Amino acid sequence: MSSYSSREIHLTSRPDGLPVAENFSMVERTVVPEADDVVVQNIYMSVDPAMRPPLTNGATKLDEPMASSAIGKVIQSSNSEFPEGAYVRHRLGFREISCVKADQLEPITTDGESLTTHLHVLGMTGLTAYGGLLVTGALQDGENVFVSAAAGAVGSVVGQIAKIKGCRVVGSCGSDDKVKHLIDDLGFDHAFNYKTSSISKELHVGLPKGIDVYFENVGGAHLDAACGQMRPLGRIPVCGMISGYNNKGARSEGVTTLSNMIYNRVTMKGFVVYEFADKQEQFLRDMRTWIADGKMKYSETIMQGIEQAPEALIGLFEGKNTGKMLVQLAQE
Amino acid sequence: MSSYSSREIHLTSRPDGLPVAENFSMVERTVVPEADDVVVQNIYMSVDPAMRPPLTNGATKLDEPMASSAIGKVIQSSNSEFPEGAYVRHRLGFREISCVKADQLEPITTDGESLTTHLHVLGMTGLTAYGGLLVTGALQDGENVFVSAAAGAVGSVVGQIAKIKGCRVVGSCGSDDKVKHLIDDLGFDHAFNYKTSSISKELHVGLPKGIDVYFENVGGAHLDAACGQMRPLGRIPVCGMISGYNNKGARSEGVTTLSNMIYNRVTMKGFVVYEFADKQEQFLRDMRTWIADGKMKYSETIMQGIEQAPEALIGLFEGKNTGKMLVQLAQE
Repeated sequence: MSSYSSREIHLTSRPDGLPVAENFSMVERTVVPEADDVVVQNIYMSVDPAMRPPLTNGATKLDEPMASSAIGKVIQSSNSEFPEGAYVRHRLGFREISCVKADQLEPITTDGESLTTHLHVLGMTGLTAYGGLLVTGALQDGENVFVSAAAGAVGSVVGQIAKIKGCRVVGSCGSDDKVKHLIDDLGFDHAFNYKTSSISKELHVGLPKGIDVYFENVGGAHLDAACGQMRPLGRIPVCGMISGYNNKGARSEGVTTLSNMIYNRVTMKGFVVYEFADKQEQFLRDMRTWIADGKMKYSETIMQGIEQAPEALIGLFEGKNTGKMLVQLAQE
Repeated sequence: MSSYSSREIHLTSRPDGLPVAENFSMVERTVVPEADDVVVQNIYMSVDPAMRPPLTNGATKLDEPMASSAIGKVIQSSNSEFPEGAYVRHRLGFREISCVKADQLEPITTDGESLTTHLHVLGMTGLTAYGGLLVTGALQDGENVFVSAAAGAVGSVVGQIAKIKGCRVVGSCGSDDKVKHLIDDLGFDHAFNYKTSSISKELHVGLPKGIDVYFENVGGAHLDAACGQMRPLGRIPVCGMISGYNNKGARSEGVTTLSNMIYNRVTMKGFVVYEFADKQEQFLRDMRTWIADGKMKYSETIMQGIEQAPEALIGLFEGKNTGKMLVQLAQE
């Protein structure tokens, strides 16, 4: 049995507020696989906003390797389903070499598209957007849709699916460049920089008839503005609330407009991507068609080297990404 | 055709904050029925918290008779379905004499129970509790239930239905007498006076495993505490948010804990009683059985005379009622 030298990222102290580099350390160690492990040389790993609350609430353990979605190449295997040289996806990122049991691996077959897409539009963030909007959000063709964090990995897919479904779509984001990207590149009907505008006023301008579906990624002031403008039988699928993730208990700014849910019989529903496992095949088929037809575009922000993984994660909360934030750990 | 002298209550100015007597006036006028009107001498009328937002948002017109559920006796009719002497329920309260079209009337048949019950446990507030808890809230036997404004007309029925369904039930209310009433008379497992306790701590004590269903009547600080303690797949049927009704735009205190909806896949859903029309028969059958079996108790706070109707409405926001607040306009 071979052994491997691998660098991995540990959480060494719990952040109070925005995480800082000092909350993490890089540890180099010798990995000795067990007999039934498939050994993966990771090429790309994902960082996601949802990783933030576990850093504080204890779900992420101290002084152990962190975890996230990753894609890599099998470099040692006795499993014929995952032979050496195969590309695989798993949940043991934040390390250069992962030893993974076969039942925790998914084969990745590319069909002309880049490997990285399987960590976003064709991966978990894509399915999150697809299921959250179409299943939890029960989107109907032609409705009025608002999505926050619209230039992010999930939001950008949400907005484009809604456009494909003939909806009027408004997105919020955190810079003027992103506003331009949403309108010029992704075809949003209206977009605004929430840091320099009134969310409530922009929603009135962009969706004068009100909101049928608010795809919630941000929480706090965004939800406060959007909830007050929900139309009868409106839906708020809650994917994330990034605005509060660096606060104690992931508490957001206060939301005061929830009584509109009563008069307009609005449904707000938290969801997680695992609910949509049965939609996986249809999702891949639809997304590949949309990408091929030029209706689904994506952006990536890729940082280089495992030593950048903490900065990549921190960067999510500073809006440093357009589209999906990834870290590249090795050459393809 | 006869004419009738009737006193009625008008909204004459829009309240800013808690309504005051000066926002209303009593007007005496001569009512001349149209040929197809059924003329009703009202005996009891209802006041409900949900009447408050329309006083400010414009849905309740100025200088016109207000409206609410009422029960009375037919005193003039050419409709054989609603003959003179019949008891009827309709939506044109806040006046002594109502002229109602037949399609806006419901016959009231009492089966030993008091007439007033058809304005609460056997009426709209009862169906609101029944449908909101069992349909919107999708209550399962044995779950952990929290209901706010638990000594009110809706909350007291919610708590008792949950007890009938084998649930652990905690209620909040606004006085120590009401706490005693909830526990001693209605069989709640735990109850607390929100004005003198920490809602969050009381919930931890009363429902140590967390909350499966929070029946929401209050909003603001109540929701802030409850949402943070929702269990996986918990439900929050939103019936009302009385804590904010006297604020501009019916805005509540800020709710900061909504991110718990994501991790625990919680659903919050606003509803109105009209959704449960198809449950009306089953509701009446169940409630009559429960009342007969001594499992469903009720309280009434009855003010006398139409001139008291504004004070009755205002009293809802001061917690002056235990159970249903009614106004009696004439002898039975």
